[in-house]
Amino acid sequence: MAHFDTEYQRLEASYSDSPPGEENLLMHVPEGAKSQWHHIENLDLFFQRISFYMVQKNGFTCMLLGEIFELVQLLFVVGFTVFLANCVDYDILFANKFVNHTDSSKVTLPDAFLPVDVCSARIRDNSFVIFVLIISGVFWLHRLVKFIYNVCCYWEIRSFYINALKMTMSELPYATWQEVQARIVEIQKEHQICIHKKELTELDIYHRILRFKNYMVAMVNKSLLPVRFRPPVLGECVFYTRGLKYNFELIFFWGPGSLFENEWSLKQEYKRGGNRLELADRLASRILWIGIANLLLCPVILVWQILYAFFSYTEVIKREPGSLGARCWSLYGRCYLRHFNELDHELMSRLSKGYKAASKYMNCFLSPLLTVVAKNVAFFAGSLLAVLIALTIYDEDVLAVEHVLSSITLLGVCITVCRSFIPDKHMVFCPEQLLRVILAHIHYMPDHWQGNAHRYETRDQFSHKSEICVYICGLSLFPLSVVDVRREDRGVYLPTGRGWEDRVISDALCHHQPSVAPSSGDHTLHQPAERTSSQRGNRGFRHTPTLTV
Amino acid sequence: MAHFDTEYQRLEASYSDSPPGEENLLMHVPEGAKSQWHHIENLDLFFQRISFYMVQKNGFTCMLLGEIFELVQLLFVVGFTVFLANCVDYDILFANKFVNHTDSSKVTLPDAFLPVDVCSARIRDNSFVIFVLIISGVFWLHRLVKFIYNVCCYWEIRSFYINALKMTMSELPYATWQEVQARIVEIQKEHQICIHKKELTELDIYHRILRFKNYMVAMVNKSLLPVRFRPPVLGECVFYTRGLKYNFELIFFWGPGSLFENEWSLKQEYKRGGNRLELADRLASRILWIGIANLLLCPVILVWQILYAFFSYTEVIKREPGSLGARCWSLYGRCYLRHFNELDHELMSRLSKGYKAASKYMNCFLSPLLTVVAKNVAFFAGSLLAVLIALTIYDEDVLAVEHVLSSITLLGVCITVCRSFIPDKHMVFCPEQLLRVILAHIHYMPDHWQGNAHRYETRDQFSHKSEICVYICGLSLFPLSVVDVRREDRGVYLPTGRGWEDRVISDALCHHQPSVAPSSGDHTLHQPAERTSSQRGNRGFRHTPTLTV
Amino acid sequence: MAHFDTEYQRLEASYSDSPPGEENLLMHVPEGAKSQWHHIENLDLFFQRISFYMVQKNGFTCMLLGEIFELVQLLFVVGFTVFLANCVDYDILFANKFVNHTDSSKVTLPDAFLPVDVCSARIRDNSFVIFVLIISGVFWLHRLVKFIYNVCCYWEIRSFYINALKMTMSELPYATWQEVQARIVEIQKEHQICIHKKELTELDIYHRILRFKNYMVAMVNKSLLPVRFRPPVLGECVFYTRGLKYNFELIFFWGPGSLFENEWSLKQEYKRGGNRLELADRLASRILWIGIANLLLCPVILVWQILYAFFSYTEVIKREPGSLGARCWSLYGRCYLRHFNELDHELMSRLSKGYKAASKYMNCFLSPLLTVVAKNVAFFAGSLLAVLIALTIYDEDVLAVEHVLSSITLLGVCITVCRSFIPDKHMVFCPEQLLRVILAHIHYMPDHWQGNAHRYETRDQFSHKSEICVYICGLSLFPLSVVDVRREDRGVYLPTGRGWEDRVISDALCHHQPSVAPSSGDHTLHQPAERTSSQRGNRGFRHTPTLTV
Repeated sequence: MAHFDTEYQRLEASYSDSPPGEENLLMHVPEGAKSQWHHIENLDLFFQRISFYMVQKNGFTCMLLGEIFELVQLLFVVGFTVFLANCVDYDILFANKFVNHTDSSKVTLPDAFLPVDVCSARIRDNSFVIFVLIISGVFWLHRLVKFIYNVCCYWEIRSFYINALKMTMSELPYATWQEVQARIVEIQKEHQICIHKKELTELDIYHRILRFKNYMVAMVNKSLLPVRFRPPVLGECVFYTRGLKYNFELIFFWGPGSLFENEWSLKQEYKRGGNRLELADRLASRILWIGIANLLLCPVILVWQILYAFFSYTEVIKREPGSLGARCWSLYGRCYLRHFNELDHELMSRLSKGYKAASKYMNCFLSPLLTVVAKNVAFFAGSLLAVLIALTIYDEDVLAVEHVLSSITLLGVCITVCRSFIPDKHMVFCPEQLLRVILAHIHYMPDHWQGNAHRYETRDQFSHKSEICVYICGLSLFPLSVVDVRREDRGVYLPTGRGWEDRVISDALCHHQPSVAPSSGDHTLHQPAERTSSQRGNRGFRHTPTLTV
Repeated sequence: MAHFDTEYQRLEASYSDSPPGEENLLMHVPEGAKSQWHHIENLDLFFQRISFYMVQKNGFTCMLLGEIFELVQLLFVVGFTVFLANCVDYDILFANKFVNHTDSSKVTLPDAFLPVDVCSARIRDNSFVIFVLIISGVFWLHRLVKFIYNVCCYWEIRSFYINALKMTMSELPYATWQEVQARIVEIQKEHQICIHKKELTELDIYHRILRFKNYMVAMVNKSLLPVRFRPPVLGECVFYTRGLKYNFELIFFWGPGSLFENEWSLKQEYKRGGNRLELADRLASRILWIGIANLLLCPVILVWQILYAFFSYTEVIKREPGSLGARCWSLYGRCYLRHFNELDHELMSRLSKGYKAASKYMNCFLSPLLTVVAKNVAFFAGSLLAVLIALTIYDEDVLAVEHVLSSITLLGVCITVCRSFIPDKHMVFCPEQLLRVILAHIHYMPDHWQGNAHRYETRDQFSHKSEICVYICGLSLFPLSVVDVRREDRGVYLPTGRGWEDRVISDALCHHQPSVAPSSGDHTLHQPAERTSSQRGNRGFRHTPTLTV
Repeated sequence: MAHFDTEYQRLEASYSDSPPGEENLLMHVPEGAKSQWHHIENLDLFFQRISFYMVQKNGFTCMLLGEIFELVQLLFVVGFTVFLANCVDYDILFANKFVNHTDSSKVTLPDAFLPVDVCSARIRDNSFVIFVLIISGVFWLHRLVKFIYNVCCYWEIRSFYINALKMTMSELPYATWQEVQARIVEIQKEHQICIHKKELTELDIYHRILRFKNYMVAMVNKSLLPVRFRPPVLGECVFYTRGLKYNFELIFFWGPGSLFENEWSLKQEYKRGGNRLELADRLASRILWIGIANLLLCPVILVWQILYAFFSYTEVIKREPGSLGARCWSLYGRCYLRHFNELDHELMSRLSKGYKAASKYMNCFLSPLLTVVAKNVAFFAGSLLAVLIALTIYDEDVLAVEHVLSSITLLGVCITVCRSFIPDKHMVFCPEQLLRVILAHIHYMPDHWQGNAHRYETRDQFSHKSEICVYICGLSLFPLSVVDVRREDRGVYLPTGRGWEDRVISDALCHHQPSVAPSSGDHTLHQPAERTSSQRGNRGFRHTPTLTV
């Protein structure tokens, strides 16, 4: 299952590509030699694309193929579902109805397909199907436009690599990000791609690429996002799905009415501290409307996700149900463990190194209660299965009895699921060592974990902080939850007189300097070591939105 | 398969819970403050239960659940077998007889079940079934009583933890045995749980918990138990199954007429050296009677074990036959490698650490002859399977031919079994290093192994000593063997004038002091390092049965 | 699949066992005590057999069994194929024709077999079958004779071990090659097994055993063999199969008209530098004839290989298609990475140690393009499979529909193949470290690899040099190719005035001294460290064919 999850993250299309004007230039740049790459307006997005293009080893072709496949997948899922729902005669498949064959007695698959005219008539009569088809069609066209736009952008990036950076496409896969970065710094002198500053440093590039991600990291670290809950029975839970993340970004960064004017500067009114209450109210009502939109779109998204999950995971469940229990770094964990100014591929390589130990650490904590139950359920299911298997081997006519085959399949799946809860008999239990290995990579440990690695509390905190949703959670990205979450927020935060969005902004941006002091129990803010040593004195997240380089 | 083997060892019920009187008190205890836990009579069993309760992480609930499931399993196995034998019409399942369905042509599973009255009549007419049901019923009731007794005991232990040791149930899973022990030593001063001594040391607790296990370890180390044989062809074999162990314990420790008066003191007559011959004769006749009882019970136990193995392992064989060849530390190995005064969980964690290397070491010695045979059998079976698979893919009607499906299944199992005898082509053969890793954990190596790790003899000795019965042996716990073993013993040992039981006792108890001197090739007696340093001078197994602390 | 590849390499039968005369004795040996082992004529072959016998742990029995099984396999493959082609009525299997059973309605497998007389008549009428049977029969008889001859030889070796080396057969499996060698050196003094020299050294023994293999290593290192090509699209390829190797050996070493007079001395005419052109022409025409013979035998060999591959690998593909992608050290890699004077088992143990790292290193370089395609193909196949599985679980009558079962099987295989191209999400990418581990074992690294481990070029060179054909290549040992290869050679090499065969000889033998100087980027010639330190001054491949010790 893990293998089907694509690593290629689509970059958001730039809705604010050409800003109306650069009102807040801090320095004036003399007119230099105008090249094609002179004064790139949306430098943030441009750098993001360059980085993204580099990390995809075969950049352009991979991007093209991946996006084309996604378009085809969308068509396929919708088309195949409509076909299955309208054009198949299941009575023939399930042998409840017999086919009149003159030549042979065997039923073939095409026998079960309805003729094209019957089928199209059924679709035409079904208004829900037509509604779905129209919605999907509109969405598909939107994606197609975006795809074409992306292709153009990446073609430009490609020519930037070739013409400006002087790298051939065959060299690119072997280049490291550090090399590319060094060349960009180099050509700034020649092409003046950024007009606000004479010289670009590596830190500038990182700040521009990671502007929004740094905000998110800061908000998660300061626990300003409402992603932790305490439901009655389960204890502390973290709910932070892709859908929620998308909504957060919509609200803060690029949706209509968001806090940012364009991709690199905050709106004027948010920079002044005066009318905070009013701004908080405006944001609250905005969140409400987005919540309502989520609620309305919910059924369509839900159906899509169920269909997509069914098509993606059914055969995985059949083949190796154990992989459903495979662990992965959760979205929240990735955000929490991220250093400031750390690119995606740098983060992923760091987390990958810690994955094996983290996974082992979590497996140390299989509940003994669950183990007892799993062992016994496996025994009972195994007994039934044993009898069915023995009968089948003795005489395979047993398989013709109704539901015997289904029972064998389901009992087999049941046993395999149970077995994933039974720890290995010869497992060595040494949580302290594992935790130390993990920390060497993830760089985060509160003081009170020391010496308590064997405790469930530590496990729980670790599992919240960093890890490792059971995959099934991957499906629970229903945006419905956003509505409730938001509503609660307004109740909790706004009456305090300072809107929480406000707190978010100020905390994340202004109050960050104090947390720079290295403290063992908290994030030490990260500055890529390879970069300009001259700036090493100013550790961490120095960027403020008023200073667009 | 390994995963279904429960780790929860049932403690023996205390048949001699309240001894008639404490005849051999060595010191007099003044009347102190009488608490609920003052003067616990059967302190051995009490400490055993405390330790067992702690090691089960979720103590009480796990124990409860585990025992309930065992009761249900017993009912299920008997009931399901009787149902399969009497209430199923196999002719319908195997399509030898047709069902008259008015509505549908499909046979369902319920069609094959006989009506309740026919079924109960068949059971009533079958006296063997009724006999089995009665026996099982009696046994089940016995288990039920034991279960209820155990629940009461553990409830008491639970309240001891909560009230005396002041540990909440939510703390318990994170506590180590060392912490619990320290608290017990602490509260002895307050509650005076042991009245024979003013202060308890950790060694006292270990001695009491492991009294019988230490005896067994001593007897195995001194090779006093008749568990090694030299059958004509196979070379030296070790036969030490759970059934045999149970019988040994019955004879020595707690059966009627055993050497021990109660759980902590030897009978008076065994303490005197005078009438050894007579005692040996008495023991010999006792062993004979136990052997006869084993023989009589043999069919019932045999049937039970076959049924249980069938229900437990059939689906494992079908799914992953390779796991049948998985290795595990044999019962004999666990006894041989055990230090004196080492608790079960301490031993298991030590052996688990050595497991991986030990398993690899044994795999270095796959017989090349067997490999050649396995490769060729796999080739021939694979050829037939290839043809059947190809035919099936071309047209699945082939599956309808009789026995084709069975053949595919059986050929597949056959190939997988063969493959487990074929070593990995890229395996690195470095037995010396592996052996060194193993020894770091199991702490035992005769001198002549040094430098001979690549020899089969070393392998054989290692495999006898420590390891790793192929699982199938797990099934051979037929107590039948006990009869033969015992009979042989009397022939061998008694004519020497000193009964071997006698030798066992004296060797194990009195002659042990000399073997205390640390020798590289032999067990150095183990004393948990964390415990009282004041006693470190007296290493090892100092406990004598006359001294009940 | 890797597991079925036999490690037992048949030694070539000695066609020139008793040479006509020892014309080129360099020294005269006085008549000593004549033992049975005095003056062994073909000492090369004798030492080879001793070494081979030792390396097979259970020497004689394994060899016997292995060869018998091979003979039986040959019979089985031919017989079973003929049976399948002529004696099975597939219409009955595929239920296109019905059987008239009076008693039961089920078709059994024997129903589908034709009666013996019909079957034998069909075989008799089919002249192609008879032709194949005759060819196979002749080949089988040839193998049988060789087998009997081998058994006799190895029986002699066995008695040499027992009587001369004084090793019992039960000791042999624990003996190392160094011990055996030491004993051979010892008994030379007594038995005078080599009459050309008074004392044998370890180097002499290695030179004799590895005479031809050293030539091949030299030729591969000097790139004299035409095994590298540059086909239009694929880039540089290495084509060096077992068939090609067999043909090379036929041409150079032991075929009629080869360069060697017998197994230890070059023909007189090749030792003189005079008539090189003429010799080259003669060799060229010989190569042509061997090519033509290959071409003529091609269909038979091709059919045999297809049949053998089908019988061997079909069930592997069905069970775990992933193993098809398993890597192994290629024939070319084994030759390239071999040191001079390194025995087979020494080489294999060295390569095995590097295998794990090498395999990981190669897996770092999964093409991202391929990954995108594989992920999407897996998605589409998985969708179809999901629907079929869901339908099957709901009602297994779906399986009775034609081609549903085949589709499920094929889709499953397709998905598994795709998955082998999708890298593990949590894989850590650190090629530099892996390459360093590999080099610790394979002892070969060109200077320009240093620091470029992450580049595809290094990967490509590494994969050419050393590694690790995808298994499917294992099937492509069609000797057809030899024809083309040879023809090209003559075109390329002969017009230069010095035949390439000539260059091969001179380069491999005479020009080797210069390459002895240890250079980091090239092979340092290897001399087993354990051997006579007195000879350590003369490193490397000092043996010249004129000096037959």
